[in-house]
Amino acid sequence: MRRLKVTLEYDGTHFAGFQKQAGTNLRTVQGVLGEALVKLTGEETVIIGAGRTDSGVHALGQVVHFETGSSIPVERFCKALSGKLPSDIAAIDAAEVDTSFHARRSALGKKYCYLVFNSRKPLALWRNHCYRFPFPLDMAAVKECAAILTGKHDFRAFSAAGSSVKSTVRHLFSLDAEQQGEWIRFTVIGDGFLYKMMRLIVGTLLKVGCGKLTTDQVKQILERGERGQGGFTAPPQGLYLVQVIY
Amino acid sequence: MRRLKVTLEYDGTHFAGFQKQAGTNLRTVQGVLGEALVKLTGEETVIIGAGRTDSGVHALGQVVHFETGSSIPVERFCKALSGKLPSDIAAIDAAEVDTSFHARRSALGKKYCYLVFNSRKPLALWRNHCYRFPFPLDMAAVKECAAILTGKHDFRAFSAAGSSVKSTVRHLFSLDAEQQGEWIRFTVIGDGFLYKMMRLIVGTLLKVGCGKLTTDQVKQILERGERGQGGFTAPPQGLYLVQVIY
Repeated sequence: MRRLKVTLEYDGTHFAGFQKQAGTNLRTVQGVLGEALVKLTGEETVIIGAGRTDSGVHALGQVVHFETGSSIPVERFCKALSGKLPSDIAAIDAAEVDTSFHARRSALGKKYCYLVFNSRKPLALWRNHCYRFPFPLDMAAVKECAAILTGKHDFRAFSAAGSSVKSTVRHLFSLDAEQQGEWIRFTVIGDGFLYKMMRLIVGTLLKVGCGKLTTDQVKQILERGERGQGGFTAPPQGLYLVQVIY
Repeated sequence: MRRLKVTLEYDGTHFAGFQKQAGTNLRTVQGVLGEALVKLTGEETVIIGAGRTDSGVHALGQVVHFETGSSIPVERFCKALSGKLPSDIAAIDAAEVDTSFHARRSALGKKYCYLVFNSRKPLALWRNHCYRFPFPLDMAAVKECAAILTGKHDFRAFSAAGSSVKSTVRHLFSLDAEQQGEWIRFTVIGDGFLYKMMRLIVGTLLKVGCGKLTTDQVKQILERGERGQGGFTAPPQGLYLVQVIY
């Protein structure tokens, strides 16, 4: 047996999230990948993912690990696995790793992007790959607020109920907002993310940008750790798990 | 009755092209738009499009015109129509035009983009919105060949059989190839395009870029007007009708 680290790209549109949901017929990344591995290697194996992306969330660089007894050389594994996967998910890298490697626990951080189409125009082409926000944004205010959220903070106020983590302190190494015409891209690198944290941060920045919330209010919400006081949860289709950092 | 000019954006993935195909149940842009107009105005109307995009080809700015007796103000027409359209097509602009305006005949030119993912990596996220070409490209050769195709030429060699146009002379005002990491974007502005011309041009440029065809050979193919001698027809999912110029 050897342990493989595989990097995945997927279009989250037709997945009910990453995690397999026992007792349901939901199409999940973990489930589809497990079926492809059975086809390829004949083995049922436990798949550990770096992060549990929600339904509709995309990945350019999700990472998983699993054990396999297969003798397929690692340099051919990626192509062989992609051949067994449906067209909306692909294995883009495979590497043999030490048994001490763990896709989630070994991760030092993650990079996410969130794509906003800031226009009143309806959207057809990218409807499943970004979030249309129709109100004009004050990008200076957005960036000022992003600077406040950057750093090591208790992000309790920016987490959804339903997760059972020990600590809600996370370190955001960077949080950038770039505007290009009608498009805004938020890029975040952090050591970890609470449940729906990235989408709550984006919802808060958008609310600040359109003047419904001030930077001072966000500061208070962060300090007081009160859930439900900040912005809305930005919808999943704008979110991309870009990279897991090891 | 008044004549409206409506600009459409659509994701071509689930359309069997623009044109309605009598006697079939194929889902076409013209068909879907016609049904939405019936819902909105109660009228069955003839829809004229600027260009007949093929199955799988996308549009950021397709233009159509039609007559309507509806009293919906033009500034509200766009939103009202989008409300009756499925999510993969949207009306992004509407304007009242003179009856001399004709979506196809009044067009001075069109702008197309073609998106190539130049990588050996499999592609999941953008599988329906670009073409993956795995071979390394010599961009200097691609640009040299693009310069040869730019200008006014008989593009017979770059047209698919099956169309019955009087002249195969077209003027390409510009043909650019830009590279950004693994992505290549071809942008073409021309006074008109023969059947599959843009996709044949892209297929030829890619063949030149990977050394399977020389610029001199392309020059000869263009001069001799021999069909089937140049590149392959690049697949539809990389092609976008960006703008119709009036």
